[in-house]
Amino acid sequence: MKKKDLFLGADSGGTAVKFVVTNDQGGILGSGEVPTDPASITMTMQRLAAEVADSLGGGPEYPRLAAMGVACAGIVDTVGGRLGRSPNLPGWQDSLLARDIGEVFPGVPVALANDVNAALYGEFRQGAGRSCSNLVMIALGTGVGGGVVLGGELVLGTHCGAGEIGHMVLDPDGPPCPCGGRGCLEAWAGSVGLLRLARELAAAENPPSALADLVVSRGSSLNTQDLAVLAGQGDAATRGIFSTAGRRLGQAVGNIVNLLDPDRIIIGGGVAQAGDLILGPCRDMVPGLVLAEEAKNIPVVPAELGPVAAAVGAACLAREAGQAR
Amino acid sequence: MKKKDLFLGADSGGTAVKFVVTNDQGGILGSGEVPTDPASITMTMQRLAAEVADSLGGGPEYPRLAAMGVACAGIVDTVGGRLGRSPNLPGWQDSLLARDIGEVFPGVPVALANDVNAALYGEFRQGAGRSCSNLVMIALGTGVGGGVVLGGELVLGTHCGAGEIGHMVLDPDGPPCPCGGRGCLEAWAGSVGLLRLARELAAAENPPSALADLVVSRGSSLNTQDLAVLAGQGDAATRGIFSTAGRRLGQAVGNIVNLLDPDRIIIGGGVAQAGDLILGPCRDMVPGLVLAEEAKNIPVVPAELGPVAAAVGAACLAREAGQAR
Repeated sequence: MKKKDLFLGADSGGTAVKFVVTNDQGGILGSGEVPTDPASITMTMQRLAAEVADSLGGGPEYPRLAAMGVACAGIVDTVGGRLGRSPNLPGWQDSLLARDIGEVFPGVPVALANDVNAALYGEFRQGAGRSCSNLVMIALGTGVGGGVVLGGELVLGTHCGAGEIGHMVLDPDGPPCPCGGRGCLEAWAGSVGLLRLARELAAAENPPSALADLVVSRGSSLNTQDLAVLAGQGDAATRGIFSTAGRRLGQAVGNIVNLLDPDRIIIGGGVAQAGDLILGPCRDMVPGLVLAEEAKNIPVVPAELGPVAAAVGAACLAREAGQAR
Repeated sequence: MKKKDLFLGADSGGTAVKFVVTNDQGGILGSGEVPTDPASITMTMQRLAAEVADSLGGGPEYPRLAAMGVACAGIVDTVGGRLGRSPNLPGWQDSLLARDIGEVFPGVPVALANDVNAALYGEFRQGAGRSCSNLVMIALGTGVGGGVVLGGELVLGTHCGAGEIGHMVLDPDGPPCPCGGRGCLEAWAGSVGLLRLARELAAAENPPSALADLVVSRGSSLNTQDLAVLAGQGDAATRGIFSTAGRRLGQAVGNIVNLLDPDRIIIGGGVAQAGDLILGPCRDMVPGLVLAEEAKNIPVVPAELGPVAAAVGAACLAREAGQAR
């Protein structure tokens, strides 16, 4: 019988499952992705098992798996092994996810996590938060998610509902948020919110400028990367959009630091690839908002692991659950 | 030698030290207060030692103390035994507080805590949070403070700066806050903020009403209790002041629940004695702001222990530190 010394971390998104296979030190031995079947956990996991084996050089490698971790968007009951509400995985939600995975990977212990918590955990163990024990991550994607590590432990909350930083209300009269509320962080700093602000601004510009030209030419494919390129060329209106988002992000960071006084704040997600366009205005805000003198200069740093963060974190969680057994 | 089976909890405010003496089950055997000497820790502790002895029936009882806990406003380094910045205790701040106390109570182990953290801990162990393991307290006093318990442990933060809930910015264009910022929770729901709003509203009323009469007749002694009485009589303008404060409190509670998903939120401090005048509008706001379905109906409850909460909590911390030794 082969030695069980490998760990699988998988991040199940609405369209693809990204995975990494690590050794017992967290070193990445293989990685890849398979398409998600949003209607079937079993079909998706069978694809994953085959691809994992391929990525390690052929043959059914899953007998060598000591443990696996699976991250999903949505409400994940890590203790009960259940996936609750999960809008991007309609055929997966309200399932006994850990059991269903176990049927495809027999004998392999399964750890579950929310995807943003897993990404935070990856950054905590192997990325931008390596030296820390108190961390908050804000993930600026289509929406805005987050996670909290305190005393080296993920904060899950009483109903596994912690980390919804995107819906911190920063001004009840602010712009509408996809959640139905107004003035949430997500309404300014998620890509949906940011693009909406860009389109509004472009429509109001008179005479039309580079931003208006971009908005018209890109149409519905406009993304935050397009805006970052234009802002990088010095376009003042577009820089202002990132600056507004960054200042609201700074308000949220200040609120979090006053509440939790962590070691560090990590900013991840696609919108954060705009870098200092958004992080600069954020960092400028923070010292003026934080009360405790010693906490004013908290580092606000970009995530390091990129799109595999949640898969890496899921593998870490699987490894550590094994060490605790 | 007498058995060491008593625990002292003291809450050192700017004008008085409130104390309780408990048995090893937390039962309160004696309580009282002594005037604070804001210039001298030693003088204050000598008064405390004498009064503690008196409260237990005469004679020097401190040899029976198994441990003591002392709570102070300000930045308290619980591990290093230091008191940092503490505006209300100018002669105490930047001291080796635990050592100085120990010189007056020789042989008695000393636990330190921030006063709001101690009050939260008292509520957690013996008050409104007894059955919980994840709790947040918001204390609405002159200012607004707070504390967080997660997984049964106080969250202190990396620089002992956690819990500054009063300076969560709820609208950067909101009213000025004593901290120098704008739109902090404290600017609406601390007594200084609430009284400022009452005076502004009274000055703007035309024709002058019951609120304007109250503001003029009470002058600089106006307090939130006066306002609560008038609101209790049905005065709409005064009810509106509490409602505004309560709605902003609800915004803060929503933000906290989205971030941490605790079991319960406890509202304490003098302003909270207005009861449903402020808690009602707060509770009305919360379900619409919280994202996780299961967390929408989080109980928002008044504190139970009143002004001795911090002394009770300090005694609990002393007792539990002893159990851990």
